[in-house]
Amino acid sequence: MAARKPLRTDICWSTEKTITIKGLDLCQDVMGKVSLGDMAFLELTDRLPNERESRVFNALAVILVEHGMTPSAIVTRMTLSGAPEAMQAAVAAGLSGLGSVFVGSMENAARILQEAIPDPSSPGDIQALADRIVDDHAKRTIPGIGHHIHKPQDPRAPRLFEIAAENGYDGPYVALMKAVADTATARLGKNLPVNATGAIAAVASELGIPWKVVRGIGVMSRAIGLVAHVLEELRNPMARDIKAMVEEQATAHLR
Amino acid sequence: MAARKPLRTDICWSTEKTITIKGLDLCQDVMGKVSLGDMAFLELTDRLPNERESRVFNALAVILVEHGMTPSAIVTRMTLSGAPEAMQAAVAAGLSGLGSVFVGSMENAARILQEAIPDPSSPGDIQALADRIVDDHAKRTIPGIGHHIHKPQDPRAPRLFEIAAENGYDGPYVALMKAVADTATARLGKNLPVNATGAIAAVASELGIPWKVVRGIGVMSRAIGLVAHVLEELRNPMARDIKAMVEEQATAHLR
Amino acid sequence: MAARKPLRTDICWSTEKTITIKGLDLCQDVMGKVSLGDMAFLELTDRLPNERESRVFNALAVILVEHGMTPSAIVTRMTLSGAPEAMQAAVAAGLSGLGSVFVGSMENAARILQEAIPDPSSPGDIQALADRIVDDHAKRTIPGIGHHIHKPQDPRAPRLFEIAAENGYDGPYVALMKAVADTATARLGKNLPVNATGAIAAVASELGIPWKVVRGIGVMSRAIGLVAHVLEELRNPMARDIKAMVEEQATAHLR
Amino acid sequence: MAARKPLRTDICWSTEKTITIKGLDLCQDVMGKVSLGDMAFLELTDRLPNERESRVFNALAVILVEHGMTPSAIVTRMTLSGAPEAMQAAVAAGLSGLGSVFVGSMENAARILQEAIPDPSSPGDIQALADRIVDDHAKRTIPGIGHHIHKPQDPRAPRLFEIAAENGYDGPYVALMKAVADTATARLGKNLPVNATGAIAAVASELGIPWKVVRGIGVMSRAIGLVAHVLEELRNPMARDIKAMVEEQATAHLR
Repeated sequence: MAARKPLRTDICWSTEKTITIKGLDLCQDVMGKVSLGDMAFLELTDRLPNERESRVFNALAVILVEHGMTPSAIVTRMTLSGAPEAMQAAVAAGLSGLGSVFVGSMENAARILQEAIPDPSSPGDIQALADRIVDDHAKRTIPGIGHHIHKPQDPRAPRLFEIAAENGYDGPYVALMKAVADTATARLGKNLPVNATGAIAAVASELGIPWKVVRGIGVMSRAIGLVAHVLEELRNPMARDIKAMVEEQATAHLR
Repeated sequence: MAARKPLRTDICWSTEKTITIKGLDLCQDVMGKVSLGDMAFLELTDRLPNERESRVFNALAVILVEHGMTPSAIVTRMTLSGAPEAMQAAVAAGLSGLGSVFVGSMENAARILQEAIPDPSSPGDIQALADRIVDDHAKRTIPGIGHHIHKPQDPRAPRLFEIAAENGYDGPYVALMKAVADTATARLGKNLPVNATGAIAAVASELGIPWKVVRGIGVMSRAIGLVAHVLEELRNPMARDIKAMVEEQATAHLR
Repeated sequence: MAARKPLRTDICWSTEKTITIKGLDLCQDVMGKVSLGDMAFLELTDRLPNERESRVFNALAVILVEHGMTPSAIVTRMTLSGAPEAMQAAVAAGLSGLGSVFVGSMENAARILQEAIPDPSSPGDIQALADRIVDDHAKRTIPGIGHHIHKPQDPRAPRLFEIAAENGYDGPYVALMKAVADTATARLGKNLPVNATGAIAAVASELGIPWKVVRGIGVMSRAIGLVAHVLEELRNPMARDIKAMVEEQATAHLR
Repeated sequence: MAARKPLRTDICWSTEKTITIKGLDLCQDVMGKVSLGDMAFLELTDRLPNERESRVFNALAVILVEHGMTPSAIVTRMTLSGAPEAMQAAVAAGLSGLGSVFVGSMENAARILQEAIPDPSSPGDIQALADRIVDDHAKRTIPGIGHHIHKPQDPRAPRLFEIAAENGYDGPYVALMKAVADTATARLGKNLPVNATGAIAAVASELGIPWKVVRGIGVMSRAIGLVAHVLEELRNPMARDIKAMVEEQATAHLR
């Protein structure tokens, strides 16, 4: 058996009297001083945000909490209807669909931006980078631009860019994301503005959040929203009616 | 086929130009103004917290984000090692174990408190209620008191009570939880102070959060922490070593 | 740190040249000789079934594979639509709702039967046991009897009892389940025949399957069915239409 | 709102008196006549297997049921320890890791084979196809060959090929999989025999199972095995000890 290197975590450890998270004492340094959103920033970046980072990160995170009767919300409600004693599994089931189609595109957009600009202190020629990105996606959808519902523009994108700019986070990643949208719009001859996904990817990149964990912001925020759907489903259930409606319609041709 | 009442949600709805969440316009009223923790409060109670509620709720929620190498964190890491392309499923798997043994006891404690005091404006005789609760659990563990690791006392409980008191949230539920601990300690002749579970249950009850969704605070907060474990596992993996160690030890008697 | 007893599993172990499952060599003893259903019996009972047990167990297990557009099937489809690269998570999400409401009642019925008759070789007075079970559920639903769709009777129950009887598995658990249904029907004055849940619980008990794992037969069998829904959803998707239909209807009052 | 095509499923539908699955009446045509494994074949291919197909498919499926203390088994046990009331969620969590690293490679191997030979009745030049596949993977691992534990060869692969051959299922996909292994071994100068993954992919292709659902055979079979781990964990738990061992070792450098 080959020697194994010892297991190692640096996130958190506890003693009888203390719990230490990323170097901070939970009771003394965190509780009463750090908000839930700032704690999330700490978990993603290994440090607490300053005030401006906190405003921008929280603005970004709240976008992802709730989007109404999404597939995830329906999944959570249907799962709860079968296992009301296990609401954690209902939320978990709802999160399981946050893959390539929805939050995954946020990750892809962040990856494109961070790979194009590995060091934001020397971003290079933004328009040249945008051209290359649009070229690279000749036959594929570019993540972060266009929207099938919100027209002419996803209202969350300009608002997030505005908040980022007010706090000094309108750097090269935001510029590149906008340049990609403008370039694609010009070349393809249709309106493809930056959508919420693209704005979040750009602003998360400004905040130094690695693209590999950008999807995680969606996962953690949506967990909050799915708990609200648990609560509403407990009070005013719709899962059985959805099931009946779907079954009735989907098997009508057999009856 | 019986007539069905129409499906109905009041959490969130969208148009081409707006997203409305519990009556607030996401872009105008929430982004840049409401933190992630306060958004969670909104999702759980249908209204934004005032400043004091926000301080107390955030202090409560951050407790539940991270507790190191918990079974949930191990589950998230093991799942990620098999499906690194689906980090949402790794977080979901980690959340699935937040059942009766861990966060469920928080729900149970909140239920006991809220059923004992349905109307906190007229709580009745706290000591009599505490006696009855201890009686009712003659042969069962009382949720919310005692701790197998933190001795003599879970440090999070007094700290949360302190923050709650500073902000005016040391009402009847907190009093009852403490009375239950004191009564059980006196009767059973062993030290059974309020633990983090009990303190959270009591303070959540003070904040008006229904017991049916108290477990949800644990679920949403832990989702944040599990994303941090995803990130660390991507950077410095331990899942394969855990698997090898467990397999080696568990099958040693067969070799 | 207290001494820990070593981890130990006796299910399966591997060497460079062999894989041994419950004492059988996978390549020599299982592959080509043992069917998937009989392998499931082995996993649940630590031994291979004889021919009669195999017929009865497989008849029981196939009942649970597929029931059309159940909440679980809808969950699997909705989850797949967001994360088509992770079909395992879509099946997992679908299984997560197999809780107290659906397959849990099968477990409860099996528990009642097995607790009433701990030793099937001396079952005691079946009618007295049935009376006591009905008494014990004065204000609660008795699991395993009645059905809200199949009328006058769930057709799976008599068929499973028939197959069990043909193979000699119509012992005391089947007798007790039927006596419970008859007693409840007589006392409550409405038709409450044994349903599929009750028949499965009784026949699983005849086969010596512990009640704690009866739910597991539902979980494993339904996993098979959910893969079929993955396949159909890939070929002819309905998830987006379900989402649109639900959202449209559930937010109509807000528009 | 655009017109939607009606939802449609052809898997299963029920009336008060019947349940019909892929055209078969559950009570009359399936129960007592079709085994669990053959039912799985029906769900994957829309028809019942003949006797030879049944032998081969069941031999293939049983391979995937159980592989001891896998990451999935550990996940199921850890999840159960926190939520013993929700074994379905414990199995679901275990399945969630069956992604690209483990069962995904089976899917990839099947995809390569089925894309190389779209029509098995005219497979073309097998060696030319094998050469092209090895070329295409110049810098990437070829799925289905080599094994890090079983040496010199995964014993399941030759056994499955043997059973397939005995029943007439050693057609072009098996030939191609073997040719890929031989070609890679010759070119790379190291022993890279077909492993279980590759053999399963090839034999599933012979049986006409679409590559998109080959991963599903792993998911359904492993669900069976994970129920056995639930049962053993209930009887002789190891989850808490694993947690203690991992936490102790992973935080030792902080103490």
